[in-house]
Amino acid sequence: MTVLGIDPGYAIIGYGVISAENCNFNPIAYGCITTDADTDFNLRLKIIFDGMNKVIEKAKPDCIAIEKLYFQNNQKTAIMVAEARGVILLAAQLHNIPIFEYTPLQVKTAVTGYGKAKKQQVMDMTKRLLKLRQMPKPDDAADALAIAVCHVQAAGTCLRQKLISGIN
Amino acid sequence: MTVLGIDPGYAIIGYGVISAENCNFNPIAYGCITTDADTDFNLRLKIIFDGMNKVIEKAKPDCIAIEKLYFQNNQKTAIMVAEARGVILLAAQLHNIPIFEYTPLQVKTAVTGYGKAKKQQVMDMTKRLLKLRQMPKPDDAADALAIAVCHVQAAGTCLRQKLISGIN
Repeated sequence: MTVLGIDPGYAIIGYGVISAENCNFNPIAYGCITTDADTDFNLRLKIIFDGMNKVIEKAKPDCIAIEKLYFQNNQKTAIMVAEARGVILLAAQLHNIPIFEYTPLQVKTAVTGYGKAKKQQVMDMTKRLLKLRQMPKPDDAADALAIAVCHVQAAGTCLRQKLISGIN
Repeated sequence: MTVLGIDPGYAIIGYGVISAENCNFNPIAYGCITTDADTDFNLRLKIIFDGMNKVIEKAKPDCIAIEKLYFQNNQKTAIMVAEARGVILLAAQLHNIPIFEYTPLQVKTAVTGYGKAKKQQVMDMTKRLLKLRQMPKPDDAADALAIAVCHVQAAGTCLRQKLISGIN
């Protein structure tokens, strides 16, 4: 199974592609789609759409996992993130790829087994699960990999338990 | 000049196409794109995108006017409206059509000359400007026509003043 994880946004959209077979995770690709603050917002939406289409067509994922959006204090920013997220969801839907949504709590719980895990703990566990020497930068790409891991882990906690018990 | 006005949403998206030449307004087409509450939300985004593309390709507008989004109490609904609005903006951008955004206050002021005008007053003035016998139903289509009128009026108040002074 190939999973594309997405950390949504409008300035930086993190993506992470992983394969998972029999509790073996492998990172395939990760990175960011970025848009410039000086660019007209509607054009930024097109750049995000074009970028998402390229990532999907290259990765050919079986499913897409994306973080659910919760509003923050800055409502203007939240509207822009939601508008960009709508475009991301559309790109997935136009490719007929099933979309799964997870809250930050679900990502933390699925990856570390602990819903109040700190960001660094989530990163460390993601790195171990994907056998990476370092977590990718920027954080948005790392977050996207964690969301992809979350999707696989949500169906079972086999690999995390293997790691915790030292079998791996 | 042909203007496409859009009242954004995810269940009902109102659209209204008008032509405006030398302060003469004519309604060309209006209606709604609707999506069913029982349909998966990502599929609803695709239905909105496909519907917008059809409206744009048929109307061939010179520009698109759309209402700005302000958050309401129901944040979940607001996120969904913003996600749908992102898809609407994308459809316009992919057709390289300039997009103009107006607040409800700007629409009221441009159409009636009074920022605190009631909905019925905006509807009445829109009906008169477009020489319609009745305002179209549902309200979303009527609102979209008002937004299109707003865009033309925003550049000058000639026709409204003609109507008020009884020249028309």
